[in-house]
Amino acid sequence: MGPHPTVAAIRLAVRRVLHDVLTACPDPQPLVLAACSGGADSMALAASLAFEAPRLGVRAGAVTVDHGLQDGSAGRAVEVADRLRGLGLDPVDAVGVTVGRQGGPEAAARDARYAALDTTAERRGAAAVLLGHTRDDQAETVLLGLARGSGTRSLSGMAAISGENGRYRRPFLLLDRDTVRQGCLAQGIAVWEDPHNHDPAYTRSRVRHEALPVLEKSLGKGVVEALARTAQLSRDDADALDQWAADAQGEAAGEDGSLDVSRLRALPPAVRRRVLRRCAIAAGSPPGFLFARHIEEVDRLVTAWRGQKALNLPGGVTVLRANGRLFFSPS
Amino acid sequence: MGPHPTVAAIRLAVRRVLHDVLTACPDPQPLVLAACSGGADSMALAASLAFEAPRLGVRAGAVTVDHGLQDGSAGRAVEVADRLRGLGLDPVDAVGVTVGRQGGPEAAARDARYAALDTTAERRGAAAVLLGHTRDDQAETVLLGLARGSGTRSLSGMAAISGENGRYRRPFLLLDRDTVRQGCLAQGIAVWEDPHNHDPAYTRSRVRHEALPVLEKSLGKGVVEALARTAQLSRDDADALDQWAADAQGEAAGEDGSLDVSRLRALPPAVRRRVLRRCAIAAGSPPGFLFARHIEEVDRLVTAWRGQKALNLPGGVTVLRANGRLFFSPS
Repeated sequence: MGPHPTVAAIRLAVRRVLHDVLTACPDPQPLVLAACSGGADSMALAASLAFEAPRLGVRAGAVTVDHGLQDGSAGRAVEVADRLRGLGLDPVDAVGVTVGRQGGPEAAARDARYAALDTTAERRGAAAVLLGHTRDDQAETVLLGLARGSGTRSLSGMAAISGENGRYRRPFLLLDRDTVRQGCLAQGIAVWEDPHNHDPAYTRSRVRHEALPVLEKSLGKGVVEALARTAQLSRDDADALDQWAADAQGEAAGEDGSLDVSRLRALPPAVRRRVLRRCAIAAGSPPGFLFARHIEEVDRLVTAWRGQKALNLPGGVTVLRANGRLFFSPS
Repeated sequence: MGPHPTVAAIRLAVRRVLHDVLTACPDPQPLVLAACSGGADSMALAASLAFEAPRLGVRAGAVTVDHGLQDGSAGRAVEVADRLRGLGLDPVDAVGVTVGRQGGPEAAARDARYAALDTTAERRGAAAVLLGHTRDDQAETVLLGLARGSGTRSLSGMAAISGENGRYRRPFLLLDRDTVRQGCLAQGIAVWEDPHNHDPAYTRSRVRHEALPVLEKSLGKGVVEALARTAQLSRDDADALDQWAADAQGEAAGEDGSLDVSRLRALPPAVRRRVLRRCAIAAGSPPGFLFARHIEEVDRLVTAWRGQKALNLPGGVTVLRANGRLFFSPS
């Protein structure tokens, strides 16, 4: 008798990613780490990795991050690490981080977590770090991006492969959370649920427990799948438009880096705005402070020219139109 | 003392559109119609048109459509038409339609309504038909598109200008519903609320009364605005990608209409899929029956070639790869 269908599904997803890592990696016995909070999704991931890796000659380890945000979190991390070792994973690291405040509590925790994962992967010489995000997490990420209202890239969710050299892999991104959790339950694996996941102070928790259930009620059961498909389509569209913008920037730029206005004017607005944004960032504007209204003002130098003065952009960048060309100057 | 700020806001929105119509139209005294259900948004529209049009030398009329879906709807349409005449609009038409079943009740009603508006505009020689959709309607449309999960175009909502020769104009698309309704109230205009707007049997009604309020609670008050911005950005992105696909199709097509596979392979996936979709539709596949999985199968003829047989697409279209070219053939 084979494993429970959900166990088979999650193992298959991990096996495919390991094949991919083996193909891409020069080391015939690469080390792959599972990033694990101790929750059901990432424990299912760790267990699947522990099961599949030896069959493929892959070395399998894990890392758990202690964010230090709750009483007893250090002891909790030690406990999770013990469970991971109990699955046969080696090495297993429990890494403590200090969460800052930049960008709000969720963004700060995420930044600290990925920094720790990067450091651990480098220290251990890992070829890949697996993350337990499911299709439901993807749907939540798309809704959070939608709330920003900043367009196609912000709707593209999480990539199946991301980070430096494609270090991060998300084997469960096309599996729903129920499958993954049942795959965990069916193996009798002990899990620990982060109470933040149910804390309505966190936007993602509200999206998960309030927004998505009501959207499913209003729009039908396929909403999570539709949001995940939107992520993939938006990512492809954003990639194509970024490529066009990079090409167009190269074609419009002179030797001094200034841009030919007549070439810019001939571009579709969606591409022209991306070119202008790229130029502003290249000149030193911090992306996080460069808003649509800034780019629109620069765009008016191209499309609504009536002798405007030089514009000031975040980061002390100035933009000036002269002699039919746009000049972006650092501070 | 000037009008109430909300009245000033809705009149200004209509005035801007009338200026635009006057600029685009050869007739110095064009006829502009307000499409009016009798609800607050479209009565506000009709009243603003009645106020602004004479000041600009524009002739102003209105049309109300009786969908015949409720008892007494014909009498209701006559009553709405009387109110519209009472605003000074002339001509005013009350047009009865028969709603079919194609695509579900909401799509069928919409199709019948626009067909009647088209016919009336042509019969009356109208230069434009104004529609009362607000930013809130736009947000609902984006959510409905999101639920389809079919990408950037489906997130682009309603255009400010659409239809044959840009006949349809939506002056209130950047105004929120509260402003428009208050602009109606402040003028003491009698309105009639379509009970369908509150009927949870209709998806849009559920989105309006269930989904959006919960999204605002979970994600913050700016959700409607973010969705409306998403519509605009998605529209621009989809337009740019459609343009790229049209150009790429031209470049890849030989004299016999077959496509050079090596050129297709060099395109970003988002553009290539659009090219393949265009080709399938040009060969006779009905767009509404052509799904992502069909296009993906065609795409595999380009990107995962291992000697596949000819594919069958909806509408009896076949696609065959031979000698490094793709051939789309009508049935």
